[in-house]
Amino acid sequence: MKKIAILGSTGSIGTQTLDVVARFPDRFRVVGLGAGKRAAELLEQARRFEPSFVACAEAADVSSLRNALPRGVKIESGAAGLRMVAAESGADVVVAATDGAVAFDAVFAAVERGTRIAVANKELIVAAGELFVAAAKASGAEIIPVDSEHSALFQCLVGEPRERIASLILTASGGPFWERSAEEIRSASVADALRHPTWQMGTKNTVDSASLMNKGLEVIEASRLFGVPAGRIDVLVHRTSLAHGFVVFSDGNVKAQLAPPDMRLPIGYALAYPDRLPGPLSVDPLVAFGEKAEATRLRLEFERPDADRFPCLSLAYRALERGGTVPAALSAANEVAVEAFVGGRIRFGDIAEVVAAAMDGTPAEALTLTAVRAADARARALARDAVEARLVASSKA
Amino acid sequence: MKKIAILGSTGSIGTQTLDVVARFPDRFRVVGLGAGKRAAELLEQARRFEPSFVACAEAADVSSLRNALPRGVKIESGAAGLRMVAAESGADVVVAATDGAVAFDAVFAAVERGTRIAVANKELIVAAGELFVAAAKASGAEIIPVDSEHSALFQCLVGEPRERIASLILTASGGPFWERSAEEIRSASVADALRHPTWQMGTKNTVDSASLMNKGLEVIEASRLFGVPAGRIDVLVHRTSLAHGFVVFSDGNVKAQLAPPDMRLPIGYALAYPDRLPGPLSVDPLVAFGEKAEATRLRLEFERPDADRFPCLSLAYRALERGGTVPAALSAANEVAVEAFVGGRIRFGDIAEVVAAAMDGTPAEALTLTAVRAADARARALARDAVEARLVASSKA
Repeated sequence: MKKIAILGSTGSIGTQTLDVVARFPDRFRVVGLGAGKRAAELLEQARRFEPSFVACAEAADVSSLRNALPRGVKIESGAAGLRMVAAESGADVVVAATDGAVAFDAVFAAVERGTRIAVANKELIVAAGELFVAAAKASGAEIIPVDSEHSALFQCLVGEPRERIASLILTASGGPFWERSAEEIRSASVADALRHPTWQMGTKNTVDSASLMNKGLEVIEASRLFGVPAGRIDVLVHRTSLAHGFVVFSDGNVKAQLAPPDMRLPIGYALAYPDRLPGPLSVDPLVAFGEKAEATRLRLEFERPDADRFPCLSLAYRALERGGTVPAALSAANEVAVEAFVGGRIRFGDIAEVVAAAMDGTPAEALTLTAVRAADARARALARDAVEARLVASSKA
Repeated sequence: MKKIAILGSTGSIGTQTLDVVARFPDRFRVVGLGAGKRAAELLEQARRFEPSFVACAEAADVSSLRNALPRGVKIESGAAGLRMVAAESGADVVVAATDGAVAFDAVFAAVERGTRIAVANKELIVAAGELFVAAAKASGAEIIPVDSEHSALFQCLVGEPRERIASLILTASGGPFWERSAEEIRSASVADALRHPTWQMGTKNTVDSASLMNKGLEVIEASRLFGVPAGRIDVLVHRTSLAHGFVVFSDGNVKAQLAPPDMRLPIGYALAYPDRLPGPLSVDPLVAFGEKAEATRLRLEFERPDADRFPCLSLAYRALERGGTVPAALSAANEVAVEAFVGGRIRFGDIAEVVAAAMDGTPAEALTLTAVRAADARARALARDAVEARLVASSKA
């Protein structure tokens, strides 16, 4: 019986993790839940899964949770609460599924205890991946990625000598703008950007998927997780999102992982590893894979993305090559830019320019959590300035 | 430094194994070579690779080899020679690359000593696979398949729990008759059958590839090597021979292996396992894979084969389901049928009928090497009878 703690339990990955746990009650038990502002949902989850440790964002929610949950359940708020859930719950696996930097300390505390981290917190790997991987190496903690692409690469690398990786290939759905011209993309509307062909995700992720910044961040993550430099990580657009990643080995052999586009698969894998769950979490994979389907034909297509139409991808490679705190700046500036785009303040095409402006103002500093926080704050300020400059420019025009 | 012995060193797999060894002289050393009637080629190989143990088919060749090779090289002929090369050469890996049953005893002797077998001897696995796998289990010998499809499955299964295999998928090139009608296939000429689209192989293998019997035999091999029953092994036709096999796991994840169609890759893998060779044995895999090629598009297509046009595939499934000595009978009868077809004595469409007739006359007996030999002989006799019956029928018509 594996003990599971979830940071970000009311988010998309959090609720899907609970779905996996609920389907395999003889294998997994929830010992800790940490969530943000959705206290009512958190309470409902805590009633159903009966963890001993519960963390909420706001101190004001602690007493109502305490009244509603059995005595003996430990409840805390804020950073201390997340830390308690991650590092004091006795979890065998901590699912790091919060957004942003809110859970960095909690996750590091768990890693330092040698606890396995099922990691879905993109910013953690992008901004502080080298520190995170080094801490895991020192304590012997396993890091199992939950993102479908990185789970794919991890699965292809099981049992393989890591020093024999020649290159990694991440697939990308291509997002809603894959068939559009550069000019159409630059002036695309918010509604356009939110029409994702295959995956159901939040607004931020869907916009990132339209700009391919999502894939750029994943290239940085792959580099950190698997120790492979930028020049040996490729992206191929694969519209049907069935194949998620390829590992090319030094001897010329290539391994790929395929799965239906359902996040419960990589989640279930990260929880069950090194075993695999005995039953499928999604539709029969052979059906999804086209094998037992009515169709007798299965076609998998892959195309190279072009830097002209998707400049965010190149920006991410540049950030990875510069290293240090630059990826943190990229990620932070992108958040500001996407927010400005979704708020109707800048055009889609401005996202890359705002991020580039913020990155250009970021020196590559040695990586510490303090330096990451400073780079994040500075990049946000630079990005906001760049957004303002565009507003002024467009009102003048 | 791994010590390598090769049974069948002058054949296609044997010479390609020596090519791999020659490219990595710091990793591999040849300690034994066994070949058939090509004594001149064997001598040349022995001079170049300097093994201490050499086996030839004919007793008459021993003295000329002895005169031409340094004193101290042990030379023997026949079954005893192969056994010496396999089991007395001190090899870490025995490459079993002879055709037919000639090396069964030698390979079993090596397996019983716990020596790794890189196995390319189809008949060994088809006819005696259960005995072979059981012997390896008992001694702790590793069996690493050299066939591209089984190497693919093996590579996908490295580090994975075998009990979590949901199904295995082997790919097939489809051979020269994939676009032809059932009637065209039935009356196809020998020249037609020998036009293989992607792989360069011997006559027998190329005809088997045209009938898909090759794939049927591989289904039986996959069942034996990986302990998966017939009902959970599928075949998909994939004309470009880039993807060689898929493993579908119980949790819904799928892993695939891809490689250029070059036998040196699975050979190199079987020799180097659990490591991988540091450099590619073929063209840059990314080029072959379409990645760095001029083309920006890579397309992988898979189709189900139909039993109507390719009855040999169904015959193999039937043999696997009946079990015992029936797969041995299938393989032996097919050899007789293919020989009759290549000799112009029966039509291509008769191959399946001859094999079916021989199989129908074969009881499913418990598997022993003695029973396999008896079933093999009886199936050949039955197949020859079936060939004769067709000759008589066609001369009457």
